Amino acid sequence: MAVYKAPLRDIRFVLNEMLDVGSVMKSLPGCEEATPELFEQVLEEAGKFAENVLFPLNRTGDEEGCHINDGVVTTPKGFKEAYQAFCEGGWPSLDGDPAYGGQGLPYILGMYLNELMSSANMAWSMYPGLTHGAYNAVHAHGSQALKDLFLPKLLSGQWTGTMCLTESHCGTDLGMLRTKAIPQLDGAYRITGTKIFISSGEHDLTENIVHLVLARLPDAPSGIKGISLFLAPKFLVNPDGSLGVRNGVKAGSLEHKMGIRANATAVMNFDDALGYLIGEPNKGMQAMFTMMNAARLGVGLQGLSIGEVAYQSSLDYAKERIQMRSLTGPKNLDGPADPIIVHPDVRRMLLTQKAYNEAGRAMAAWIALQIDIEAKHPDEAVRKDADDLVALLTPVAKAFMTDNGFAGANLGLQCFGGHGYIKEWGMEQLVRDARIAMIYEGTNGIQALDLIGRKILMDQGQRLRKFTKIVHKFCEANRDDPAMGEFIEPVAKLNKEVGDLTMWVGMQALQNQEEAAAAATDYLRLFGHLCYGYFWARMVQVALPKQNGDEASFYQAKLTTARFYFARVFPETLSLAAAIRSGSKSLMEMPIEQFKV
Amino acid sequence: MAVYKAPLRDIRFVLNEMLDVGSVMKSLPGCEEATPELFEQVLEEAGKFAENVLFPLNRTGDEEGCHINDGVVTTPKGFKEAYQAFCEGGWPSLDGDPAYGGQGLPYILGMYLNELMSSANMAWSMYPGLTHGAYNAVHAHGSQALKDLFLPKLLSGQWTGTMCLTESHCGTDLGMLRTKAIPQLDGAYRITGTKIFISSGEHDLTENIVHLVLARLPDAPSGIKGISLFLAPKFLVNPDGSLGVRNGVKAGSLEHKMGIRANATAVMNFDDALGYLIGEPNKGMQAMFTMMNAARLGVGLQGLSIGEVAYQSSLDYAKERIQMRSLTGPKNLDGPADPIIVHPDVRRMLLTQKAYNEAGRAMAAWIALQIDIEAKHPDEAVRKDADDLVALLTPVAKAFMTDNGFAGANLGLQCFGGHGYIKEWGMEQLVRDARIAMIYEGTNGIQALDLIGRKILMDQGQRLRKFTKIVHKFCEANRDDPAMGEFIEPVAKLNKEVGDLTMWVGMQALQNQEEAAAAATDYLRLFGHLCYGYFWARMVQVALPKQNGDEASFYQAKLTTARFYFARVFPETLSLAAAIRSGSKSLMEMPIEQFKV
Repeated sequence: MAVYKAPLRDIRFVLNEMLDVGSVMKSLPGCEEATPELFEQVLEEAGKFAENVLFPLNRTGDEEGCHINDGVVTTPKGFKEAYQAFCEGGWPSLDGDPAYGGQGLPYILGMYLNELMSSANMAWSMYPGLTHGAYNAVHAHGSQALKDLFLPKLLSGQWTGTMCLTESHCGTDLGMLRTKAIPQLDGAYRITGTKIFISSGEHDLTENIVHLVLARLPDAPSGIKGISLFLAPKFLVNPDGSLGVRNGVKAGSLEHKMGIRANATAVMNFDDALGYLIGEPNKGMQAMFTMMNAARLGVGLQGLSIGEVAYQSSLDYAKERIQMRSLTGPKNLDGPADPIIVHPDVRRMLLTQKAYNEAGRAMAAWIALQIDIEAKHPDEAVRKDADDLVALLTPVAKAFMTDNGFAGANLGLQCFGGHGYIKEWGMEQLVRDARIAMIYEGTNGIQALDLIGRKILMDQGQRLRKFTKIVHKFCEANRDDPAMGEFIEPVAKLNKEVGDLTMWVGMQALQNQEEAAAAATDYLRLFGHLCYGYFWARMVQVALPKQNGDEASFYQAKLTTARFYFARVFPETLSLAAAIRSGSKSLMEMPIEQFKV
Repeated sequence: MAVYKAPLRDIRFVLNEMLDVGSVMKSLPGCEEATPELFEQVLEEAGKFAENVLFPLNRTGDEEGCHINDGVVTTPKGFKEAYQAFCEGGWPSLDGDPAYGGQGLPYILGMYLNELMSSANMAWSMYPGLTHGAYNAVHAHGSQALKDLFLPKLLSGQWTGTMCLTESHCGTDLGMLRTKAIPQLDGAYRITGTKIFISSGEHDLTENIVHLVLARLPDAPSGIKGISLFLAPKFLVNPDGSLGVRNGVKAGSLEHKMGIRANATAVMNFDDALGYLIGEPNKGMQAMFTMMNAARLGVGLQGLSIGEVAYQSSLDYAKERIQMRSLTGPKNLDGPADPIIVHPDVRRMLLTQKAYNEAGRAMAAWIALQIDIEAKHPDEAVRKDADDLVALLTPVAKAFMTDNGFAGANLGLQCFGGHGYIKEWGMEQLVRDARIAMIYEGTNGIQALDLIGRKILMDQGQRLRKFTKIVHKFCEANRDDPAMGEFIEPVAKLNKEVGDLTMWVGMQALQNQEEAAAAATDYLRLFGHLCYGYFWARMVQVALPKQNGDEASFYQAKLTTARFYFARVFPETLSLAAAIRSGSKSLMEMPIEQFKV
């Protein structure tokens, strides 16, 4: 069966031992109270909530799914009660702005809350999860009146939020969207159009839902530069915050999906719905990216979350399930066979998951910390650096972590053999749930284009160099440590290779833009391994001096997992580099009409 | 939406142009009538049956699933009628022995029938598919009386067959099985025990079901050497072939599965069921492998089948769906955007599928032809060679083709973006269906152990050399052809590398058997690329002289796909070789107790 315990020991390792978050927090005005002790308390409670409240609803929620009846959506049994407990625990406001009722705790803490909740129940976690995007957009771009009216209720969890972007004919290409917003005399707008794939678009968890909607003004330029962002609540809100009449927005249907079946993915019909402009007219894409960037990191985290529960579950099974004998002689002498964890190929599957998860957790935490620094550090140059690093690494986190999460879920399933394919064991749900993360908030192909195009080539590699310099300095500082050598060498080599390859692709792309696009997906994976390699080396640096002290076994496991990663997983970089260097020709030379059956 | 057309042009290419099957058939006694014209007729009809009868039932079958009521199973709407049409068309007897009513056509033709049917409807195709295994086992090891009684009904399709191996506590490790067979005075046996995961274990398509059951005699040695194979029909059969009383075997429940939901996967309870020994007492595993080897190739084929329908569907979508502009300027001037097939990353996904499918089809056909040669060639040495090659390549076909089929289905889904995740579009079903093929009939990890252990190291590489010699000769013969050079060079290099690596792993394994097991999965994939590389080179050899003649576009597409394969897919071999050479240490050094959360 799928099992889950909040991986608090590993989180503590990353927070306190690798990142020394306590010291960083002291340098961030407003975060002085975010001590390691506070983190510990919050995470322990979050772990209990995830393990005891959310995880038991994961299988049943998938089994039951959501129901719709004339636009009224009912979530699976227990979801509403879990949401009430979530609000009563004060979780929605954890890292919110104190000006609107938030607790002002750092983003990184909110990130771990999300990791734990998504491991326990990804579909449920998307109800509060989407609220974050709406909160961010209103907080960054909304008028003061809208902020005062909506932010406190979003932070208390009394209302949830959505992001209404996609239409049936346009997902990636939002420039084609058709939903219209007609200005009214009072400064508001009337919105009409149909949005699809709206996560948490309609449900019974809260009294109101705040839709953030992309639409086009009557005089808008065509394409992407004519899109504006609006806020349109399910129920209109009176000036005192009480609910007014029902707005002209209704769920038309729910999608039948491969996974995350307990999350209501709705077709939302806007019919003269009253809405309010967020940000400037025709600058909706900018405002949207405020939502989107946080959402992308959140989706990357879902990859880690599912990877973690898949790992724990398959580990549990591999220790219990007995089948065949160890090739080096029986290990379970009292039984008729050995636990399958003795078999090298089962270990390969377990360690691959473990190696991906722990590196992903370290990387995600590091990015989250940059987000806190970017938001709160007193030095503008430091803030700018952090902002650049977050921009650079967000597509990597989104795509690399979700690809690995899906791979991990599949390895976890595979450890169960035939039982992995049977619903009651819970593993196949993890595969189905994990699959969406490679698609939504921009497919992983789009992330790859974002990385190599917008984030790297467009600024002539300035952001990239900020990261490769960090890696370079780390390698230089540790290169002479004999115990670190085996880990530093491959990272330093790949760091140089990424620089060379970027230059090469950039030169090619000057002649033909398709060269960058042809390299994109393999390049993102290569870059992902540079990140994971770097974070594994940093984890090793922490673990090495502790491998014979207290908790020796925890640190030794870090070291052996690192060695496994470099021996067995990291060599993927060889293939990726070769594929990148083969250029675009093999992709592009076939005329479209020759693609046929 | 998922779409499917039987890929007859490509099948013709492999059969007639690459393999020259017509000439081979002339050398096989009994196959003289299997002319290319006959193949063509049969395949055209098979294609129509797959496209028009089976494919329309694929989505609805998945949606409805199977029903069980007190042991009585009902298949989804339309399945029974399709099965009747299948029997009326004479399809079950296609490659059966004429002595029992079969048409005596070659195995390779039956293989293509299976490819087409499984593409159209994998779950449905498993009802007749499992019959083949039972037929093979009875045909090879059954007494004449059993053959006379059962084979004609299996070949007419009047009855179907099953393979009852797995028990809840043992799948891979059949030595632990507990089902008992007690000899009766009349030479029959009474079988008692519970089998799980029995595909097509119970259904309403036929009046009787013939279960092939592994069980243990009272005096049997423990472990794998004490297992015998029995035939236990659902209804006992009178000497005249008419049905007698119901036997003591009943479906206890149906599994709720990730995919192939329209196939009834049953828990089968045997309660003093009357059964007949197949083959020698305690030699059940040998008899079982007769079923299993054919079944393994059949499962490998399912990988191809799903890969094909995923490719066709995503290609169709990529030509229709418009989103963004080509980076080299608009291609669809009349529309607001270009079809997504203009984008390099979409092409990467399409071409990867195409490259895997076409190489897989070529390899599977070549193996199937060896099976025909092994069964029918007059020269014993030729038969032995064929037998060795089939034994060597069966685990590769099973594991490599199903891994690639699953990867292909996921790439196909990814081309659809969000729509790929929605059930009505049909793509997510392909992913769910494809997933089982990596597990059943021996997980892909077990295939990898079979390849490197039993098939290669155990005979000191004799079988391996039979294959690498074929590759070597081909490379030598074509190395000086300048047009072939770019394809020959990587294949020749990998052929040598596989030899070297095998030697290296073999030497390591002499010290420690875990070294072979640690290398197994990566080794199988490496070997898979050697096969695909070889078959791509052979396809290129056929296509090169025809690239400017009739159907130039078909042959040009072969060449560009081959170039894509070597440029973008084949470099995976670099990573695999590096991972193999890293040895077993990184997998095995962590003590079990250090695996924890």
